Amino acid sequence: MRAEVIAVGTELLLGQIVDTNSTWIAERLAVIGVDCTHQTRVGDNVARIVSVLEAALARADAVVVCGGLGPTQDDVTREAIAVVMGVELAPDAAALALVEQAFRARHHEMSPSNRRQADVPAGARLIDQRLGTAPGLICPVGERVIFALPGVPDEMKEMFERAVMPELRRRAGESGVIASRVLRTWGIAESRLGELVAPRLAALDGAGEGTPTIAFLARGLEGVQLRLTVKAASVDTARAALDREEVALRGLVGEHIFGVDDETMAARVAALLTVRRATLAVAESYTGGLLASSLVAVPGASAWFRGGLVAYASGVKRDLLGLAAGPVVSPAAAKAMAAGVCRLMGADVGLATTGVAGPDKQEELPAGTVFAGIAFPDQPPDAVGFNLFGDRQRVRELGTMNALDWLRRRLEADF
Amino acid sequence: MRAEVIAVGTELLLGQIVDTNSTWIAERLAVIGVDCTHQTRVGDNVARIVSVLEAALARADAVVVCGGLGPTQDDVTREAIAVVMGVELAPDAAALALVEQAFRARHHEMSPSNRRQADVPAGARLIDQRLGTAPGLICPVGERVIFALPGVPDEMKEMFERAVMPELRRRAGESGVIASRVLRTWGIAESRLGELVAPRLAALDGAGEGTPTIAFLARGLEGVQLRLTVKAASVDTARAALDREEVALRGLVGEHIFGVDDETMAARVAALLTVRRATLAVAESYTGGLLASSLVAVPGASAWFRGGLVAYASGVKRDLLGLAAGPVVSPAAAKAMAAGVCRLMGADVGLATTGVAGPDKQEELPAGTVFAGIAFPDQPPDAVGFNLFGDRQRVRELGTMNALDWLRRRLEADF
Repeated sequence: MRAEVIAVGTELLLGQIVDTNSTWIAERLAVIGVDCTHQTRVGDNVARIVSVLEAALARADAVVVCGGLGPTQDDVTREAIAVVMGVELAPDAAALALVEQAFRARHHEMSPSNRRQADVPAGARLIDQRLGTAPGLICPVGERVIFALPGVPDEMKEMFERAVMPELRRRAGESGVIASRVLRTWGIAESRLGELVAPRLAALDGAGEGTPTIAFLARGLEGVQLRLTVKAASVDTARAALDREEVALRGLVGEHIFGVDDETMAARVAALLTVRRATLAVAESYTGGLLASSLVAVPGASAWFRGGLVAYASGVKRDLLGLAAGPVVSPAAAKAMAAGVCRLMGADVGLATTGVAGPDKQEELPAGTVFAGIAFPDQPPDAVGFNLFGDRQRVRELGTMNALDWLRRRLEADF
Repeated sequence: MRAEVIAVGTELLLGQIVDTNSTWIAERLAVIGVDCTHQTRVGDNVARIVSVLEAALARADAVVVCGGLGPTQDDVTREAIAVVMGVELAPDAAALALVEQAFRARHHEMSPSNRRQADVPAGARLIDQRLGTAPGLICPVGERVIFALPGVPDEMKEMFERAVMPELRRRAGESGVIASRVLRTWGIAESRLGELVAPRLAALDGAGEGTPTIAFLARGLEGVQLRLTVKAASVDTARAALDREEVALRGLVGEHIFGVDDETMAARVAALLTVRRATLAVAESYTGGLLASSLVAVPGASAWFRGGLVAYASGVKRDLLGLAAGPVVSPAAAKAMAAGVCRLMGADVGLATTGVAGPDKQEELPAGTVFAGIAFPDQPPDAVGFNLFGDRQRVRELGTMNALDWLRRRLEADF
């Protein structure tokens, strides 16, 4: 079964708001195993809505339209659906009762324009509103169907779950489930990852239902992700197939995989520290708080995070971290900062960043020259250097991820 | 002139990421007066991309396609464009040189699969990459044109501004100038802003070329923005019209306007500190580095930023900032932290944040209870409280903006 999503609203086409409805609906369709091949956004214009509805119905079994059910003259989704169905749009007594009831329940006065919301294409069924005022519509078009939902996200979601999901499942018969899992990587180029994973792609190619497919998602500062998707008869079968594939991929990609699904790099570091009952403190120069901030983003950070020092002025580095005079962008400075912040904050593990964020050179070093330092208990501190590419913000963000990733690999291997 | 936007990527159709690219492009098209009537999202499938490209070209003069230019087998936008153009897709020496150069500049090894990124439909022009590796393409189709850009937002935006905007304006035969200016507000609801600005909207309505139009952009953590756009014969005329309108709007909106165009809240604070020849240090609890990080994001921060302390563990607050025993989420703690970090780092001005980011309560206070503290020279430290709504990350981000905004207002008024 195939469904498409159409978001109606000129404000979408002017870039005034981001269309999150289509994304949400697409995710829900995937969960019930309905394929979504196209999503369209179109303005408040009857002819254009008719045209995209017809194109969608020519490709899909069902179309979900969001928006354009309001009371104003530019809310014309109802008119467009009537044209596509080839029927009259007329005031409907049952719909009017729903609208009036919605206003009563909210203690709002109903204005004459709201009567428009009770216009219904002949043959359409109503979906009653529980949060707003405009009823939704289930509109059969031959064997196919258009669902019309409000554009307000909460109203749309409530109606979708209550009325659209069951109707789609009924129409789809037994479609099974689609489940997916994301493996997150860092420190490996997408192309190299593709080469490592190639044997699995070949093995899975054309294997059909019950076997995962693999997609590559370049997520910028979240790294390159491998998304496994499988269509199966049950949630358990799907999960088992994903488990098997994850094992196979970990065998090929190894330590470059840092997390699964929503697990951030910082969350992975947090998990490793928690298992080891170790506390962490960070000292930052050019990253300027990004490192601490991504760590504090993990709920429960107070269990293992002592704190951080943003030692931006060189004097602060020397006074508080005990750095010797000399260059502050160097492996030696990174080591001294990591060890110094451990002492200052009484932490087991210290992580430090120093470097040139740019745009200008510093200590004769070009922008993008950065170092990370690590201090583990009973080991001499260690440092590593990276040459990063991009503007000031990108260098700081990449450097933060690289430092956390290095700490992750060291925690997994050496602590 | 009409343009459409097509976002390519199966991950969009599975609802795994929100398509912010189309929204951003739509906003930029609106600024230069190009009508955008449809936006489409389609999966990584040659036939379907071809079909939506053809439908878009039948309706519009230009199509901007984002995504599907990567090195993997599911990146098929280049193939689809070649089909639509009716030409061969072949390796291009100039494109290969660009890809190789991008890898060299980033000190990454280029894999054989990256050679795919140098395949170019015959007759297409290249847009060189400055942040990533995949070149963009300008592909004439008769009198019409397809622009192919990467799906990574930073790369897409940079190429759009540099190569697509000028080409669209040239094709639109625009001889005049379109200029826009954004006034950024914080601490005022969009509805209230609308009421304040209403007299200007009425005055400008239908006034025609040479007079600015005003649009409201709700930008979440960047606040509500007023975008003024004017079409004029010359840059000077346009600037003069924007200047006049800015003065009028500042008269109505006042101190809620914190910045202009790309000026962030932190950049505004930096400018105020620089004029006053004052240095700043910050102490953070629940914001955990976000405050320092947004300040360090301003180039040249070393001239006025001493550093920051992320005092996450209560022991760190006491040992390094000299807090007395007692609650750490309170106005008194915020004041002590601001004064303490001034002393610790030898700064003129101290800014501090303490609060409950959530999800759990702390010191019997609900998540979202936060305080900011300010220490100015020769004044007793001051504190202010906010009740913020949202999840952990949102509370931390809102709290960071509120603290910076309070410092900005205090610097403007009292320093």
